[in-house]
Amino acid sequence: MESNIVITSRVRLARNLINYKFPVNMSPDEWSKVISEVDQALNKENKNYRLTYMRELSDVQKNSLIENHLISPALAEKKDSGAFLLSPDEKVSIMINEEDHIRIQTLGEGMALKECWNLSNKVDDILEESVDYAFDKELGYVTSCPTNIGTGMRASVMLHLPALSITNQIDKFLYGVSQLGVAVRGVYGEGTKSIGHLYQISNQGTLGASEETLIEKITQISMQIVEKENRTREHLKKNNYDELEDDFYRAYGLLTNARKMTSNEAMKLLSLVKLGSEMGITPMVKGKDIYNLMVKIQPNNISNIVGRELPKNDRNKMRAEIIRNELLNK
Amino acid sequence: MESNIVITSRVRLARNLINYKFPVNMSPDEWSKVISEVDQALNKENKNYRLTYMRELSDVQKNSLIENHLISPALAEKKDSGAFLLSPDEKVSIMINEEDHIRIQTLGEGMALKECWNLSNKVDDILEESVDYAFDKELGYVTSCPTNIGTGMRASVMLHLPALSITNQIDKFLYGVSQLGVAVRGVYGEGTKSIGHLYQISNQGTLGASEETLIEKITQISMQIVEKENRTREHLKKNNYDELEDDFYRAYGLLTNARKMTSNEAMKLLSLVKLGSEMGITPMVKGKDIYNLMVKIQPNNISNIVGRELPKNDRNKMRAEIIRNELLNK
Repeated sequence: MESNIVITSRVRLARNLINYKFPVNMSPDEWSKVISEVDQALNKENKNYRLTYMRELSDVQKNSLIENHLISPALAEKKDSGAFLLSPDEKVSIMINEEDHIRIQTLGEGMALKECWNLSNKVDDILEESVDYAFDKELGYVTSCPTNIGTGMRASVMLHLPALSITNQIDKFLYGVSQLGVAVRGVYGEGTKSIGHLYQISNQGTLGASEETLIEKITQISMQIVEKENRTREHLKKNNYDELEDDFYRAYGLLTNARKMTSNEAMKLLSLVKLGSEMGITPMVKGKDIYNLMVKIQPNNISNIVGRELPKNDRNKMRAEIIRNELLNK
Repeated sequence: MESNIVITSRVRLARNLINYKFPVNMSPDEWSKVISEVDQALNKENKNYRLTYMRELSDVQKNSLIENHLISPALAEKKDSGAFLLSPDEKVSIMINEEDHIRIQTLGEGMALKECWNLSNKVDDILEESVDYAFDKELGYVTSCPTNIGTGMRASVMLHLPALSITNQIDKFLYGVSQLGVAVRGVYGEGTKSIGHLYQISNQGTLGASEETLIEKITQISMQIVEKENRTREHLKKNNYDELEDDFYRAYGLLTNARKMTSNEAMKLLSLVKLGSEMGITPMVKGKDIYNLMVKIQPNNISNIVGRELPKNDRNKMRAEIIRNELLNK
């Protein structure tokens, strides 16, 4: 059950080079130098990381990378200076000339913060063999924005919390969680608004505690949220079985029949069939990777299939078709 | 296409016996006498009409007969005096001691007013061989309520008008029709409200015109309405194909997946898939008798299956199951 609720883990390290100003104050020539320094440092051991410049990408491609969590919206905006290196398995993404010179990001499935931290650490070590980091004995890693100073680390998990959401407990509960010094935000929503009942929990501070301590804290808090979500699911199953069964089957009926669908509606319905399958109430979607489907049907990921920005109506038709094919196994 | 829009035809004749007061003023003994006189008159030729007394029936059974259009709500209220005779093929129903002593009702599928009139006429002749009708040379058949005096005939057709309904033309259009001297009302709705986009058209007056003239008038007006409905369907197909396709498939998805459903929602969705099938946009329900399903899922028809009044929630669950089984051919 845990791995269905904790969908992905992510660890990001912010690093800067001692011999350069922060990206915002750099010249085009310096941007290029930093990019090639990082590229060479990483690829010297034949790692096959693929370098992509922001200037090579269309808006649809950049937004699609954001929807896949491979780059940040801030990097996408650096159309002249930005670049990123991606490992062949797409688990490591190194953003260059975003807010900081280097941002190492590692991704893992389920609750995998420790694995991500180990992997980030390894990549960090490889880079450090070749480049000189800006590091202060008192403060730790120097970053462009003071909130990242210290470990320069942000550890986050993405949680799927449909039961807490449909019982209207989520806002109050996550507000309580945010009081423990973690940041809570929605995924794929404007600002902190969540769609598909997906939420992201990450550490607020990066200073005054070791990476291991921060990761342990996020892990602990996440497990508490998972427990609360699970208890709410059990309660719902016991007390609202009929309503839920009807809701889940209706969601499935719409997903497998509609001829056009907005991403908002699709996310809501997919979240319901995911919950139904995990609760054993609606087994039709068992074994289907609903979260991957949620990513796949984001607006720019759909446009990216045809290689250009599709009008909304065409996107909604293609989205409905992708969902039908996926759920009906065609 | 016509037979999908004109669903059923009905002709009703009001008749009274000369030797009795109107039912409302009769004694229990006289009620019985009228019932047995009509029963004997009709069954003397071994017609196998089944006699049923209102006092023998539960509320659920009476309401189920109303939902099947075999008796009127007014007869169901005559719990001490009322009875009806039903032909083996259920095409002829003779209500006794309703508002009038005798009401002969004949039912046919599609546009069949002439056939219904001929059948009613035949049954009327058989009765007249044995009983004495109250008939006035000037006025015609004498009836309890003056609006039925004259021919005592009401001819009606039930129309399925989804295209006129979803394009919001129906109210204005049917108001225009009502100015031609016909009565328009919804079927299965409170008062004149329609559910499932079903409407009934019948003659307003029963005096001053022959039965044949009245039937010709209702037939002509119905064919005009059918033509307007068909033209609207063509317009919709040409201009709103995508929206309609999506609406129809969504309706089908809900009907074949929901685990509970109110009759209001079911009627609306069934009307859509019926339209979709007839327009060739959603062929999944082709050959299914959607109108019969609409009748089958009325509240009392569902309760009647288990023989007692079911709580609303149980009814909604059973309704969803009946619809799924019917549409998925299980």
